[in-house]
Amino acid sequence: MPLLSRRDLEFCLYEMMDTEGLLQHPRYTDHSRETFSQTMDTAEQVAERYFAPHNQLADEKEPWFDGEQVHTIPEVKEAFRHYVNSGLLNARLDFDEGGMQLPHIIAAACSGYITCANPSSAAYPFLTMAAANLIKHFASDDLKSLYLPLMRTGIAAGTMALTEPDTGSSLADIKTSATPVDGGHYLIRGNKMYISGGDQDITDNIVHLVLAKIKGAPAGVKGISLFLVPKWLVDENGQPLKRNDVKLAGLLHKMGYRGTTSTVLNFGEQDQCVGYLIGEAHQGLKYMFMMMNEARVGVGLGAAVIGYRGYVESLAYARERPQGRHPSNKNPESKPVAIIEHADVKRMLLAQKAYAEGSIALCLYANHLIDRIETCDDKDQRKPLQELLDLLTPIVKSWPSEFGPKANSLAVQVLGGAGYIREYPVEQCYRDNRLNPIHEGTHGIQAMDLLGRKLWQSGSLGLQTLATEIQQTLQQAAEFDELHEHCQQLQQALALMHTTTQNLGVQLQQQGPDIGLANASAYLSLSGHIVVAWLWLWQATAAMKALQSGSEEDFYRGKLHGCQFFFRWELPKIQHWSNLLQSADDTCRTMQNNYF
Amino acid sequence: MPLLSRRDLEFCLYEMMDTEGLLQHPRYTDHSRETFSQTMDTAEQVAERYFAPHNQLADEKEPWFDGEQVHTIPEVKEAFRHYVNSGLLNARLDFDEGGMQLPHIIAAACSGYITCANPSSAAYPFLTMAAANLIKHFASDDLKSLYLPLMRTGIAAGTMALTEPDTGSSLADIKTSATPVDGGHYLIRGNKMYISGGDQDITDNIVHLVLAKIKGAPAGVKGISLFLVPKWLVDENGQPLKRNDVKLAGLLHKMGYRGTTSTVLNFGEQDQCVGYLIGEAHQGLKYMFMMMNEARVGVGLGAAVIGYRGYVESLAYARERPQGRHPSNKNPESKPVAIIEHADVKRMLLAQKAYAEGSIALCLYANHLIDRIETCDDKDQRKPLQELLDLLTPIVKSWPSEFGPKANSLAVQVLGGAGYIREYPVEQCYRDNRLNPIHEGTHGIQAMDLLGRKLWQSGSLGLQTLATEIQQTLQQAAEFDELHEHCQQLQQALALMHTTTQNLGVQLQQQGPDIGLANASAYLSLSGHIVVAWLWLWQATAAMKALQSGSEEDFYRGKLHGCQFFFRWELPKIQHWSNLLQSADDTCRTMQNNYF
Repeated sequence: MPLLSRRDLEFCLYEMMDTEGLLQHPRYTDHSRETFSQTMDTAEQVAERYFAPHNQLADEKEPWFDGEQVHTIPEVKEAFRHYVNSGLLNARLDFDEGGMQLPHIIAAACSGYITCANPSSAAYPFLTMAAANLIKHFASDDLKSLYLPLMRTGIAAGTMALTEPDTGSSLADIKTSATPVDGGHYLIRGNKMYISGGDQDITDNIVHLVLAKIKGAPAGVKGISLFLVPKWLVDENGQPLKRNDVKLAGLLHKMGYRGTTSTVLNFGEQDQCVGYLIGEAHQGLKYMFMMMNEARVGVGLGAAVIGYRGYVESLAYARERPQGRHPSNKNPESKPVAIIEHADVKRMLLAQKAYAEGSIALCLYANHLIDRIETCDDKDQRKPLQELLDLLTPIVKSWPSEFGPKANSLAVQVLGGAGYIREYPVEQCYRDNRLNPIHEGTHGIQAMDLLGRKLWQSGSLGLQTLATEIQQTLQQAAEFDELHEHCQQLQQALALMHTTTQNLGVQLQQQGPDIGLANASAYLSLSGHIVVAWLWLWQATAAMKALQSGSEEDFYRGKLHGCQFFFRWELPKIQHWSNLLQSADDTCRTMQNNYF
Repeated sequence: MPLLSRRDLEFCLYEMMDTEGLLQHPRYTDHSRETFSQTMDTAEQVAERYFAPHNQLADEKEPWFDGEQVHTIPEVKEAFRHYVNSGLLNARLDFDEGGMQLPHIIAAACSGYITCANPSSAAYPFLTMAAANLIKHFASDDLKSLYLPLMRTGIAAGTMALTEPDTGSSLADIKTSATPVDGGHYLIRGNKMYISGGDQDITDNIVHLVLAKIKGAPAGVKGISLFLVPKWLVDENGQPLKRNDVKLAGLLHKMGYRGTTSTVLNFGEQDQCVGYLIGEAHQGLKYMFMMMNEARVGVGLGAAVIGYRGYVESLAYARERPQGRHPSNKNPESKPVAIIEHADVKRMLLAQKAYAEGSIALCLYANHLIDRIETCDDKDQRKPLQELLDLLTPIVKSWPSEFGPKANSLAVQVLGGAGYIREYPVEQCYRDNRLNPIHEGTHGIQAMDLLGRKLWQSGSLGLQTLATEIQQTLQQAAEFDELHEHCQQLQQALALMHTTTQNLGVQLQQQGPDIGLANASAYLSLSGHIVVAWLWLWQATAAMKALQSGSEEDFYRGKLHGCQFFFRWELPKIQHWSNLLQSADDTCRTMQNNYF
């Protein structure tokens, strides 16, 4: 069973988005479509050989803690090692940093293979990459020269230690403290919870990036600083000297994603937890958000490819499984048809295709935007792209996280009884993917971020840029009569989004954020559906162009059908969300605690 | 933590539906509201004391097969024993059969407590009750007098053995054979799969109700017969004589509902599997459907109460968990609020309330209908009620099975990280409830049953009866100005359902079932939402009446708010489904296998 469809990835990379255009930029002169392809081959092979085979086993034999030490099955460590050796851990770094100097979009496609094969084992290298990236950008040269080599060679893994037992998503209220001491470092004291990879036996060392407040700091998020806290303190060569005072209080046992340890950590139980300030004091949240935004795009991609995995599995099952007959066939002696012939099974497969391929296109587009930003030397041109990326980040995180699990539920349903048992792989997809609407900012928090902040920043430049991008697609789509219906519908959807947004702007101004943000989740749904509809129209336009040359008709007709499904079965839902938003429906806000 | 809300159950029983009216019927003269209440007390106590405590344990330590024998944790057997001893196993039977002579609706409320506490341990007694009921109705006196006492005392449990590995939902194609032999019995040969409770160590014997085809029978469903196949052959006193040739090939390992064994059974590997024909040859499917219809209403109720369990848990969590502040509050030194104060958390709780309480009302209404049918001595009055029950059965099975799991997903989301870990109970609800859209006829099969069969039978008398029932509620609701908006909306919804149904009738006639049934799932969604909207308006009307007397304002205001949520956030979705149906959208049907 293939993990992702290379054909579909290359369609996104080269027929929708102009990934080859990046090759004009000086950073990519040593690259070519062939080197991109070879890197994806490598990722696919590493995924198939070292990640996929233990996906189920890591779920069955989840990590255990003997009171002293965490144990994971050895396959996880082996996969991590192969990932490091393949060079993928540093895919995006410059050649002179030991990297492959690849664009984000290619690195994302590679990550897609790994997560699709085994989301929980993928978490260890991915967290390491994200943490190293943050250190690279904000830490002192001393910290960088000591810790980055350890992380880039896989000797040390990384974590992000934000959440505390009492505060959850409310980072303003974290209580972990940092006290400056002689020698330039700090003593960290506090408890963190739900820390992925917070302890393990895969790497020799772990570098925790910990949010804490320096004594006397301002209240709220403005008093948060970021610290590098190693599991083992190291000498100047990076060799372990002694255990830092970071202790695993226990493991948490998840519904899915079981192979990734989820930990409760105690920092400084003996007042000896050494932490090093990253960047300036009280700027920690800003730094962390750089990592968070990257992680949010990554969560979206993870949700998308787990959704895709279920699609591929249920498609193969539906093609092979004979059962039942068409309703018009009353002859019980005729041969049963494969279940893919039943209209309702087609519906469930088409919905999965629409959700999963739409999500993958969305996440690749976000990476494409990052590449455009990074290769754009003109500040004025860069600004609108950055604003668009900011605007889309909550959608890129949330939309696949909502519709990936929906796709997985449909995959379970296509398999029926087989879908519900652990002897088949789709129920694990369903469990694994349920994490994604929760971590890296819940769905509700993304909605508030979108409607309360991103939509309005820089005079709504992000939204204007989105409209410009969509108009480009509409212009190209207008060349094809077959897409006329969809073009009209997307125009109307854009107009509806515009009206709704204006209306919400007035509500926020006149009635304040408690009322104006009360139905933020409906705005996230509305805008997510319009963005994904656009990406489907873009795919359909690329398919129409290709069909003119007459090749691969099945593949391109599939794209047109996927687009039609999204426009007919999904996009009309926006009217209802818009009505709720424009009427400032107060049902939820006015519900009283004691009425429940 | 309470399991179900007694207040809410009694609201359905006595303030919506006229359960006390049943007391006028001769069968219930020995009963009173007090005896009903006492029985529910018993069920609640049995549920709390013997079922709830091992719900999580049975999930962690699922049944295992040592190659010879299945093992379950001893708590399951103990719970079964207490259930039998409480009399609940025979709650609906007449006094002279050793029963409690209770109406269906009270028995259903009692079952709700048990399933809510522990769905997988509840399956063993529930399957036994359903199988015994079938034997009672269709088996010979000899079979009845031998096996019913065993089942009613819990010595033997029951199963329904329909599904085969190669045929799944397509019963027309089953291959299990039955060969008549001297002595009046049959030799059964074949394999069955996904048989719940197909083997266990809880009861001394097991009575399998097996669908098989007698050699030479007509092809398809018309050649299916029903057999009683005991695990142990018994003497005339019901004492075990020797093992029948029914062998456990293995256990299947489910995502949830883990405490219930799911088995692969081999019948007649040594050509010595004795089976007894129930009723007439080739009538097996008709008999089984009596059990199936009962089981389908039971599945709906199970999905509803698991949905409710998640609601109660997440509500309690949201009330206790302080986190974050209102958007307008920019003072980080102010105290965090309980998360129930956040509008988006209220939305998630209201949606759960609307889904779970709507589902419970729906399932109790189905049982109320059964009671009305059974206590109606006038055949002409009984007929429309029976047709209504037939029409509603696919909805009663499917709507809670779709929205119960949705409620559970929201419960997970309210708890956030805590919702995703097994240290809290909601993730198990989410896993357990995912079975319900699959077993006893998948969602797609229910949709075909509704649109292809139930809707049109007896000149659509069921639909007419539904309209009459809804009009009664509308008349009563019209007395209250506060319900005016909802009344109008439900009137329009009914009109839309009427138009859509007529349109589909024409499609079916003119274009045949392959086209006419292609979007059946959208019709199931449409009609389900309208029925549940009606039940919510009925609840709101009862609440308005009660509010006039001024008592329990919080409870009744909650009902009004739940109704408003359903009408504002859910009911508008029907327009989209109707559009797809009325346009005979062909997106799914025309998708080609090779386009995927």
